[in-house]
Amino acid sequence: MSPTGDGARPGEPRQPELDRDRFPVDPWRLTELRYEPGDTSVAETLFAVGNGFLGFRGNNAEGRRAHEHGTFVNGLHETWKIRHPESAYGFAEVGQTIVNAPDSKIMRLYVDDEPLALDEADLLDYSRTLDFRDGVLRREILWLTPAGKRVRVTSSRMVSFPERHLAIMSLEVTLLDSDAPITVSCQLLNRQDGEDEYAGSGGGGDTKILNDPRKAQRVSERVFEPHEHWQNDGRSVLSYRIANSGMTLAVAADHSIDTENEYSVEHYCDEDIAKTVYSVAAKQGAPVRVTKTVSYHSSRRTPTRELIDRCQRTLDRTRAEGVELQYRKQREWLDDYWARSDVEIPGHDDVQQAVRWNLFHLAQAAARADGLGIPAKGLTGSGYSGHYFWDTEIYVVPYLSYTSPIWARNALRSRATMLPLARERARALNEAGALFPWRTINGEEASAYYAAGTAQYHINADITYALAKYVDATGDVDFLAEGAVDIAVETARMWMTLGFWRHNGDSTFEIHGVTGPDEYTTVVNNNLYTNVMARFNLRYARKVVRAIERARPDAYDRMVTRLRLRREELDEWERAASTMAIPYSEALEIHPQDSHFLEREVWDLAATPEEQKPLMLHFHPLVIYRFQVLKQADVVLALFLQGDQFTQREKLADFDYYDPLTTSDSSLSNVVQSIIAAEIGYRDLALKYFLHTAFIDLADLHNNTADGVHVASAGGVWSALVNGFGGMRDYDGTLSFDPRLPTDWPELSFRLIWHGTRILVTLRTESMRVSVIEGGGGVSFRVRGTTYRVSAESDIEIRLDGQGPVLEGAPSQDTNSRYRREDGSIMRPSMPTVTDSIPVIGA
Amino acid sequence: MSPTGDGARPGEPRQPELDRDRFPVDPWRLTELRYEPGDTSVAETLFAVGNGFLGFRGNNAEGRRAHEHGTFVNGLHETWKIRHPESAYGFAEVGQTIVNAPDSKIMRLYVDDEPLALDEADLLDYSRTLDFRDGVLRREILWLTPAGKRVRVTSSRMVSFPERHLAIMSLEVTLLDSDAPITVSCQLLNRQDGEDEYAGSGGGGDTKILNDPRKAQRVSERVFEPHEHWQNDGRSVLSYRIANSGMTLAVAADHSIDTENEYSVEHYCDEDIAKTVYSVAAKQGAPVRVTKTVSYHSSRRTPTRELIDRCQRTLDRTRAEGVELQYRKQREWLDDYWARSDVEIPGHDDVQQAVRWNLFHLAQAAARADGLGIPAKGLTGSGYSGHYFWDTEIYVVPYLSYTSPIWARNALRSRATMLPLARERARALNEAGALFPWRTINGEEASAYYAAGTAQYHINADITYALAKYVDATGDVDFLAEGAVDIAVETARMWMTLGFWRHNGDSTFEIHGVTGPDEYTTVVNNNLYTNVMARFNLRYARKVVRAIERARPDAYDRMVTRLRLRREELDEWERAASTMAIPYSEALEIHPQDSHFLEREVWDLAATPEEQKPLMLHFHPLVIYRFQVLKQADVVLALFLQGDQFTQREKLADFDYYDPLTTSDSSLSNVVQSIIAAEIGYRDLALKYFLHTAFIDLADLHNNTADGVHVASAGGVWSALVNGFGGMRDYDGTLSFDPRLPTDWPELSFRLIWHGTRILVTLRTESMRVSVIEGGGGVSFRVRGTTYRVSAESDIEIRLDGQGPVLEGAPSQDTNSRYRREDGSIMRPSMPTVTDSIPVIGA
Repeated sequence: MSPTGDGARPGEPRQPELDRDRFPVDPWRLTELRYEPGDTSVAETLFAVGNGFLGFRGNNAEGRRAHEHGTFVNGLHETWKIRHPESAYGFAEVGQTIVNAPDSKIMRLYVDDEPLALDEADLLDYSRTLDFRDGVLRREILWLTPAGKRVRVTSSRMVSFPERHLAIMSLEVTLLDSDAPITVSCQLLNRQDGEDEYAGSGGGGDTKILNDPRKAQRVSERVFEPHEHWQNDGRSVLSYRIANSGMTLAVAADHSIDTENEYSVEHYCDEDIAKTVYSVAAKQGAPVRVTKTVSYHSSRRTPTRELIDRCQRTLDRTRAEGVELQYRKQREWLDDYWARSDVEIPGHDDVQQAVRWNLFHLAQAAARADGLGIPAKGLTGSGYSGHYFWDTEIYVVPYLSYTSPIWARNALRSRATMLPLARERARALNEAGALFPWRTINGEEASAYYAAGTAQYHINADITYALAKYVDATGDVDFLAEGAVDIAVETARMWMTLGFWRHNGDSTFEIHGVTGPDEYTTVVNNNLYTNVMARFNLRYARKVVRAIERARPDAYDRMVTRLRLRREELDEWERAASTMAIPYSEALEIHPQDSHFLEREVWDLAATPEEQKPLMLHFHPLVIYRFQVLKQADVVLALFLQGDQFTQREKLADFDYYDPLTTSDSSLSNVVQSIIAAEIGYRDLALKYFLHTAFIDLADLHNNTADGVHVASAGGVWSALVNGFGGMRDYDGTLSFDPRLPTDWPELSFRLIWHGTRILVTLRTESMRVSVIEGGGGVSFRVRGTTYRVSAESDIEIRLDGQGPVLEGAPSQDTNSRYRREDGSIMRPSMPTVTDSIPVIGA
Repeated sequence: MSPTGDGARPGEPRQPELDRDRFPVDPWRLTELRYEPGDTSVAETLFAVGNGFLGFRGNNAEGRRAHEHGTFVNGLHETWKIRHPESAYGFAEVGQTIVNAPDSKIMRLYVDDEPLALDEADLLDYSRTLDFRDGVLRREILWLTPAGKRVRVTSSRMVSFPERHLAIMSLEVTLLDSDAPITVSCQLLNRQDGEDEYAGSGGGGDTKILNDPRKAQRVSERVFEPHEHWQNDGRSVLSYRIANSGMTLAVAADHSIDTENEYSVEHYCDEDIAKTVYSVAAKQGAPVRVTKTVSYHSSRRTPTRELIDRCQRTLDRTRAEGVELQYRKQREWLDDYWARSDVEIPGHDDVQQAVRWNLFHLAQAAARADGLGIPAKGLTGSGYSGHYFWDTEIYVVPYLSYTSPIWARNALRSRATMLPLARERARALNEAGALFPWRTINGEEASAYYAAGTAQYHINADITYALAKYVDATGDVDFLAEGAVDIAVETARMWMTLGFWRHNGDSTFEIHGVTGPDEYTTVVNNNLYTNVMARFNLRYARKVVRAIERARPDAYDRMVTRLRLRREELDEWERAASTMAIPYSEALEIHPQDSHFLEREVWDLAATPEEQKPLMLHFHPLVIYRFQVLKQADVVLALFLQGDQFTQREKLADFDYYDPLTTSDSSLSNVVQSIIAAEIGYRDLALKYFLHTAFIDLADLHNNTADGVHVASAGGVWSALVNGFGGMRDYDGTLSFDPRLPTDWPELSFRLIWHGTRILVTLRTESMRVSVIEGGGGVSFRVRGTTYRVSAESDIEIRLDGQGPVLEGAPSQDTNSRYRREDGSIMRPSMPTVTDSIPVIGA
């Protein structure tokens, strides 16, 4: 887990090193075998549990020192007035920050009145396991108390996938050596408005961290206004209204104890805490088991009284059914998930473990988001303030579309509900149609730095792209016809007014003053990624409007009325698309990232010391923007998403140019580089980038896993496997494969759902096998130019003549001397330097 | 004073309309004849008095309702931590805001215990006069009290020019009809930390104003920490330390009464207020005169006890000399000022009045700034937070260099003292040398919006330019040699690392990622103004280093050691200067504002409704930046400052191109447009721009005079007269004239000091006369190619063959159809439009 890179070559990804004594290899579990008091922040993220609605960080049940005591309900946020030190018209005005919901994880343990506190405890044995198959987090410790008594403490924690509002926790204590009084104190604690008396720091205060835009904004005044709170019959209830956003929340907990020992129970409840305390006269060998079932309900406006009722119904049902049934339903739910979603890499259990950890966290981030968005960190931390970004659409929705399409549909519905606010935002920025916010929870723009925020207009095409992925994979035209088409139409309209026809010889449609995915170059003209995706957006809008006209004339008429759609608009969209400015350098035979990118100086990444990375934490934006240097793949991402718009030769040339300029300071970069490296034949490099992505959190490669899981990167793990090594593409609704299996991987298999039919694809070095595992329809697909059709009746086995691209003059792995100037000479990269300090005037 | 423009053509300046019944024409005074309770905010600025160190807004002595009760001490500021909602490395961290010093203007009057409050009072007569010759603000009112008694109230206020720390106020009350008890309550009041009980609003809170970057930042917590305060023998003393900045302040006041009536006096003093209250049993016709002398001293670190001593010495001396002497000294001081500085426009008393009002305020802003900077609003309001900008160097220092050179020297010294911090800032932004802050009080960068702040690297060349102006006008090489040269050298070094040689065919020195003076286009490559000024900076540094080597070998050696100057650097500077990228369009035969300016869409100013101006308050920066539209002259400013680097034909073409794109939303724009319009022969337009500049505050043409005087614009009034109509230039130290007198002006005369010799230049339609009015040396100058030399012995009279440029195909005033595309066709300007709102999805 060393944060030091290997410095091998610019752009080369840091290779992961995981402490396998602490985190052993296991294809179906992440287990921690050693508790490290000084190093819990990352593990809090790695062992987080959640279901897309509710999330718990992997804090100790004892509730003591933590990097961040995190309990998150998707979308539960506070708003605050953004105070720009120098403001301007149209700047985002309302900040939004996910809040820390009342902590129900706390089950404090005292033996002989001595508290168990893991940081100080004498632990004879320790293990913690997150099981990807049953979805339960379990911890077992053997504690030698200060009095010399050995105590076995077994605990578990589960957030239910089938029951969206339910979590179950248990704590079992057994005295191994002698009798002793035991106390178990179960709590619901509002940490947002007052810290736990035992809590530690809770987030750094040094300057560097304050400048880190990836951190959450903190809200300072009281956030949770207390409403009804009470205790009754082992049930505790707290409820709140959030001060500015007006959202409401109720949390309720049931408690039960199972023991042969004598015990008593006490209760305490005020507006910020509810305690249920069991005092047990425990005998040696007689276990004490305390179980806590918790329910959270939240709403934008439902009264808390109603939310409390909902919590009670959830708990009543659980009480009636028993917790064991919940564990079984969780297991069944996950069996089904893995049957749809698993990717197998035989012979590489370490990689297999990392892949499944990522896929498991994708389920935890997306499964029960239902009508809400998928935050950049899921519900595992407050990083990025719980906001929704383009990450979901580009890195997560494609995975969902192919494995759990209803989740993809839900994610897209969350965007559709933002359309009214997106229309308002478009008008505020003088555009037609709809302009989606760069970052948001409630649909309003929350980005307070427009150059790397609002200027990223590409998010509008990204959302339409995700819609297309879903529709292509499912054939769900009704979803489009009944309203989702509005996304495509309104974003197309936005592009039409954002861009303009520039008359300079030829007439080209240009889009100025935008920022592409690469945030190290901002507010440019004709960002290639943006223009290519806008072109797609315009054409897709036209295509689906026509498709609805054919397939659903009734819905078509409603749509025309609803959107005041004019037939000429469709022609204007095509005209803009067909004349779209696509920067190209004849001299370098590459696509410049924007119209003027090649005029910039080249940043010498090889000469940049490690301690000055990531660049954004060590250089003023004005310095970074002045150079050819990338935070993340930008042109290269376009080569992937719109791959049928580029030749193989162009992809090779572009990748060769940009790869050495790419810092991958964004966690989104490596996956894209892996996919295109695989496509153009850099198989070793593709694997390196893939491994970096797969271990980005497990090995904390960006030094910020403590803030939460990189959910988009997790989605990218699947893409790198399926699109990268599997070579799967679905241009314009046609499924195809061109495998590029890593050299030392004997096999790779994955599942896909295509228009309701579930298939299994198994790649080996010499062959590719496709079989239908569920659903009656056959699936047609192409492999290297040949069309096949698999059906439930017969699998298909295709012989492969090796892996990799069929491209003349296949590239070598040696990509040095790639810096060429426009005039053909070799570039000498420079980098910003500071001369020796010069003494001040003596006078 | 209507804020509506005439809409005649885009870019055409609004012509002033002043209510002459309220503000009558008077060449030497500004008089207000009618009190308008609802409209005092602008007048508070117009009638402000100050001396460059201390300034009072024109608030009523009664201290009641005001737009802003302002008492300002130059440089007296509070600091605060800037909280960027999304921060990044190198963003300004310390905000700086001028504070409201304790208000000593207050002299409340009660007759029959009824307070005089102008807003409600029954005023039978009212007049207020600021006299530019004696430097005293006087007010006379005749008040009919509620009891029906007529009371004459005469008051005066003066901030002394010769005595930097002294102000004198008086109030004389005479009962015309009958006897009555009179109370005069003299106060020192800390308004910064608690409002006057009688105070009104004090500044708007609507959203529009919050978005206006020209407003002051407000500081919310207690700012003045009270130190010693006391009263003794009619003297009141308050003293403070400012909480975060640590600055110190003392204010002391002496009070005296002169009356034949019986009276008593009472005192009250706490940490925030000191009162001296005279209760007089006034007889009809027996005047009561109360005089207050006040002294302010402040410091960055001197203890308040010491500052109190200084205040006492100032007051003791004044007490000994008497106030009448102070009035005489003020008059003498101003006689001298006008003898050096006056510009006369016979036959146009209205314009004459406006010109003198501007020149008077220049003295009030600059005279006793001494080692401090000159704030953008002088000391007349808190606009722009009391910060120093480039305005001083480009718009004010040239005027000072030619009329009051010691003030120019002082202003430049204030920059020299910032060099250590400018070096630190350069290092933080990865540059060599020194990088001056875009806006500052204490020398640290306070600009919180880099795109229109830190990115304006041109300020470094602007400071060097001002230094050159001063040295050229005075010949003060010793000032350079003893340290000021460091400014030129360190800024030259900054340019060397900021720019780079781009190899693309020819090798050009390019400067990327900067913002020019026009803040409607930001962070561009090769801003023409910046590059032209950087070229000047590089060459000037080389020139003066060599000059010092020749003239002051001793100082040269010290300089080389101090700056670690290498001889090769001089050659590098010249190489960069000679290969500097200067954007030029062969197709349009104009200089693009930056490398890519012409690729932008053209904003149609003629079609932009008045209520959407200024653009910055009605459009998001991203929208504005996407278009060809200017906040202020940018290329055109370069044509003036570096006029010998451009041909007349280029100036004409550039002006023709940019003038219709220029909104003049910046108050700095009109003066430059006036000067170049005059130079290329647009005499009517030059006059319109000049008149706009001259009346910008008097007629409140930018609707923000309430925030303070536009000091740079005031400097521009002089430049428009002398450089514009007078055609004066001083390229490379050579004085020259090419007059362009407005058609209906019979005469224009102005004074200049050239190397210590004071000359008077008188222009008439057919001739130009130059005479020496002080100093023994002669002065050489050129007029239209011929060299002349004037000496004390003989005036020179030159016949002029008309006014205006000698340029083939002289331009017509018709500048429509000037929009040409690069391909030669006519542009159809577009502007951002918003389509009709579209209904939201019904579902």
